[in-house]
Amino acid sequence: MARESGVKITSICGGKGLCGRCKIQVIAGKTSPLTLKEYEGLTEEEIRENYRLACQVLPLSDLKIRVPHESLSSPQRTQLEGIEIPVTPDPVVSSYELKIDPPSFSDPEEYAEVVTKELKNCKRVSIEVLRGLIRKLRSLNWNADAIVRYGELISINPPSSRNLGLALDIGMTKIAGYIVDLEKGETLISKGVMNPQIPYGEDVITRIARASKKKKEAKRLRNLVVRALNSLIRDMCAEIKADPEEILDAVIVCNTVMHHLFLGLPVKKLGISPYIPVLKSAMDVRAGEVGLKISPGAYVHILPNIAGFVGGDHVAMILATDLWKYEGKVLALDIGTNTEICLSDHGKLTSVSCASGPAFEGGHIKNGMRASNGAIEKVRILDGRVKYNTIGGKNPIGICGSGILDAIAQLYLNGIIDESGRMKDHEMVRKTEDGKEFKIAGPITVTQGDVREVQLAKGAISTGIQVLLEESDTSMDELEKIIIAGAFGTYMDVSSTVAIGMLPPLPLNLFEQVGNAAGMGAKLALISRRKRKEAKEIARKTRYIEIAEVPSFMKIFARSTFFGSKWGFEIGDES
Amino acid sequence: MARESGVKITSICGGKGLCGRCKIQVIAGKTSPLTLKEYEGLTEEEIRENYRLACQVLPLSDLKIRVPHESLSSPQRTQLEGIEIPVTPDPVVSSYELKIDPPSFSDPEEYAEVVTKELKNCKRVSIEVLRGLIRKLRSLNWNADAIVRYGELISINPPSSRNLGLALDIGMTKIAGYIVDLEKGETLISKGVMNPQIPYGEDVITRIARASKKKKEAKRLRNLVVRALNSLIRDMCAEIKADPEEILDAVIVCNTVMHHLFLGLPVKKLGISPYIPVLKSAMDVRAGEVGLKISPGAYVHILPNIAGFVGGDHVAMILATDLWKYEGKVLALDIGTNTEICLSDHGKLTSVSCASGPAFEGGHIKNGMRASNGAIEKVRILDGRVKYNTIGGKNPIGICGSGILDAIAQLYLNGIIDESGRMKDHEMVRKTEDGKEFKIAGPITVTQGDVREVQLAKGAISTGIQVLLEESDTSMDELEKIIIAGAFGTYMDVSSTVAIGMLPPLPLNLFEQVGNAAGMGAKLALISRRKRKEAKEIARKTRYIEIAEVPSFMKIFARSTFFGSKWGFEIGDES
Repeated sequence: MARESGVKITSICGGKGLCGRCKIQVIAGKTSPLTLKEYEGLTEEEIRENYRLACQVLPLSDLKIRVPHESLSSPQRTQLEGIEIPVTPDPVVSSYELKIDPPSFSDPEEYAEVVTKELKNCKRVSIEVLRGLIRKLRSLNWNADAIVRYGELISINPPSSRNLGLALDIGMTKIAGYIVDLEKGETLISKGVMNPQIPYGEDVITRIARASKKKKEAKRLRNLVVRALNSLIRDMCAEIKADPEEILDAVIVCNTVMHHLFLGLPVKKLGISPYIPVLKSAMDVRAGEVGLKISPGAYVHILPNIAGFVGGDHVAMILATDLWKYEGKVLALDIGTNTEICLSDHGKLTSVSCASGPAFEGGHIKNGMRASNGAIEKVRILDGRVKYNTIGGKNPIGICGSGILDAIAQLYLNGIIDESGRMKDHEMVRKTEDGKEFKIAGPITVTQGDVREVQLAKGAISTGIQVLLEESDTSMDELEKIIIAGAFGTYMDVSSTVAIGMLPPLPLNLFEQVGNAAGMGAKLALISRRKRKEAKEIARKTRYIEIAEVPSFMKIFARSTFFGSKWGFEIGDES
Repeated sequence: MARESGVKITSICGGKGLCGRCKIQVIAGKTSPLTLKEYEGLTEEEIRENYRLACQVLPLSDLKIRVPHESLSSPQRTQLEGIEIPVTPDPVVSSYELKIDPPSFSDPEEYAEVVTKELKNCKRVSIEVLRGLIRKLRSLNWNADAIVRYGELISINPPSSRNLGLALDIGMTKIAGYIVDLEKGETLISKGVMNPQIPYGEDVITRIARASKKKKEAKRLRNLVVRALNSLIRDMCAEIKADPEEILDAVIVCNTVMHHLFLGLPVKKLGISPYIPVLKSAMDVRAGEVGLKISPGAYVHILPNIAGFVGGDHVAMILATDLWKYEGKVLALDIGTNTEICLSDHGKLTSVSCASGPAFEGGHIKNGMRASNGAIEKVRILDGRVKYNTIGGKNPIGICGSGILDAIAQLYLNGIIDESGRMKDHEMVRKTEDGKEFKIAGPITVTQGDVREVQLAKGAISTGIQVLLEESDTSMDELEKIIIAGAFGTYMDVSSTVAIGMLPPLPLNLFEQVGNAAGMGAKLALISRRKRKEAKEIARKTRYIEIAEVPSFMKIFARSTFFGSKWGFEIGDES
């Protein structure tokens, strides 16, 4: 109900009553009785105070409700700018100056011919262009720019107008958009919005399950994203005083599930081992075919996937970091709900994917929240006292990914939790009826349950890295660089990740935090044919390892859930 | 109002109150008062009997009306089968047997790849196929036919299923459809329906005016045709127990106006001299893009146009008659509301178009009707008595094109009308308050006005032929053959056309009536790549002459409206 009215309430389990993250407080009005799941998911005190799970309760009258801050999927601090690699623009669309005379008695050629005979290598005219051809040419007084893409006339523009391109990085939780001047290669504007599919499940598996249930559900998820993209496009265009129809080309990067949902391909097989996609290859579709409202003649290029859990966004990261061009052995990872990791061994690429969960996006964490104003983003325990920073310097209202990482690292380094993650009896630890918890600020605490969540995420990521290294006959010490991409990866404290054993204990100067490399890769593929071709090469040559299939997986994973010295020596040596 | 309820009332002027063909009789109920146009268009007697013009009257209550037979656009006898030219099938879609294993743990390729690596020259997969790929393959137990078109996988079919193709000839008044077995080249079924745009104007100019008025009107005309095509496709498929989705390729032929209306291109310029089309070239569009409900991956190929008034149907006629392959000089014409004429001079093609009007389709003729049951189709005056045949041997209810042609020829040959078309005083001619008329059967007459209409049609066609010959430095006697295509052209009596001077006075054995050559050409372009290429060649190399631009046009036209000896000698020598 709330979802329809635009209030975005967190849902991690996809409305199954399991995650307990969608708590709301009913202030007035009649509701359906408490469900069993609510009895399990709410404390007695919460029940007394009329707390309900939004996914379980049905209104029996108009209601007045309060949505606690932690139940809101609030806008997140996004990382839009990545490293910039200079590349000479060579977009797939080219602009040609047209100076023509209208057809006449003495020269009664067809209108399309009048235009195309002026153009070299233009063999086809898109039907969308034909439909508006006469009107457009006349309004421009027969003095226009012709936009040609691989021999097809896709647009008629005012003379010397900008050629705009669109790059989109569609993540599970957030979408980053960029409008680029295709001829100069400059980013004119970038903007991030939340993926409106979040309330339908925060992780890949929940969203696949949702979309596979009914055709209608997949369509609904698709429409949600398309609508969000069109609104993002409109907003960006408004800021640079452009019309969406001026956008002549687009590149999309996303994981394989988002790729399938966006193209209307069935996702069911992506949720069942061996997780095989319908399509891995790069795809060009007309913007209209996928519902994007840009130039009617424009095409959308979607970067190729590598496997069911490693998509075009991973390819884009490899592309943007020039990973395959390193002489030595370099690791690159993009940390998210799903973490993809790639090892380049003198250009030989091998990738794995691991389900690291939503802990670092604030999910499954009692006081977790996304990286927006008021989120605790840095934590240190100094002289027995907790110090913290919040985003925007606001009063703390919750704790975001980098904050929870810091907090757990500090608890471990200060001996408040042990290697197994158990919270010890300690002067700063208090016991509640839900178990032990450690106070950070006011009511904001880190609970034993939170520790377990981070332990899972940390375990998944370090297992991914170890399996990848093992399968590539590479020892940790051979790594010359570790590139960390993505929003969380940019803001997190590397020393904390090393402290808990999530990333390998290597000198900190080997780590490089590069921002949104996937978005950057999308932009590169947008402005450069060469880079677009390189992306295809990357997808083709990257070897994918399904980590659950590796015999040593269980052993490594079991070892990796422990904090600290699980990389072969005691933690703390380096940090 | 009637139009919406499915009653098809004739309209020639497009609802402007000018043609007086849409007479209805109001039996009961209240209506708006008579308009000026109705006072002009109805006789006093008709007004007394509550006749109204359907395009002028507005209902002020529920009405009971009678629609006289002559006001109905009734189904017409159509000419579906043309000459058959043997051609080795070589369609653009090919079928390949697939015997594949589903992807698995040991061989975890993407689904699209599993299919495409089995296929030579298949580089792309249509998104429509991808969307249903897994479902289809599984339902066929991984044993299927792959349909490939120019390197694109467009369909997955049951093994050894028929590959169906669709040919459509969209005329101004009627639409002919054919379903063809693409591999055998056999026509499985053919069917004709009326073009539902007829009530919006019977001739090209009225329809252009209608569609240029508002974008919505063009869209309405387009939707009408698309709906009729889809219903024709469904009907034909039902009869051969096929699913429309089994149709894998389609070819459309039509004149330039229908071409533009169908593709959603603006037609305004086609109604204004110098009548320049937006596009002449052949076009391939996805079936879905133009609303045709056949295989979701199928394309539609539309034959190229030659000029604003000479379209792909003319190209198809030239293709089907192999006109450009004759050694000598051969004339081919397709008689309709617009008549297109082509001269092949040892393969050099020159075409003209002339507005011959709807007289031969029963339009503008007092008792005119289309060629359906009860229409008088043959007339002779023998020993001072009128003899006639009706279609289906039914009681006469009107007179169709071939009947009116015969009647006029007989009146002229029997001296009842003179060369100028004037009806003489004669024992068989009676005078009414509307002028003279000649009784054919019961109340069915040929009026002085009817004579004038045929005179215009005859004048236009013979002018077209003469201008074409003159501009090609060809004398009539050089013609080795005259090919006559189209429904009217097939059923008309050639001797009558020669008698009135519509066609040149040449030995009757030089005339060849070939049926619906345009539809045949569509089928050829459907089953043969070579023929499709030939059609492009034909459109490219055919010289078009705008007859109104030829200096001698007015002189020739003035001369040609006379019946009889206007081809340089007295009529009757040959017939």
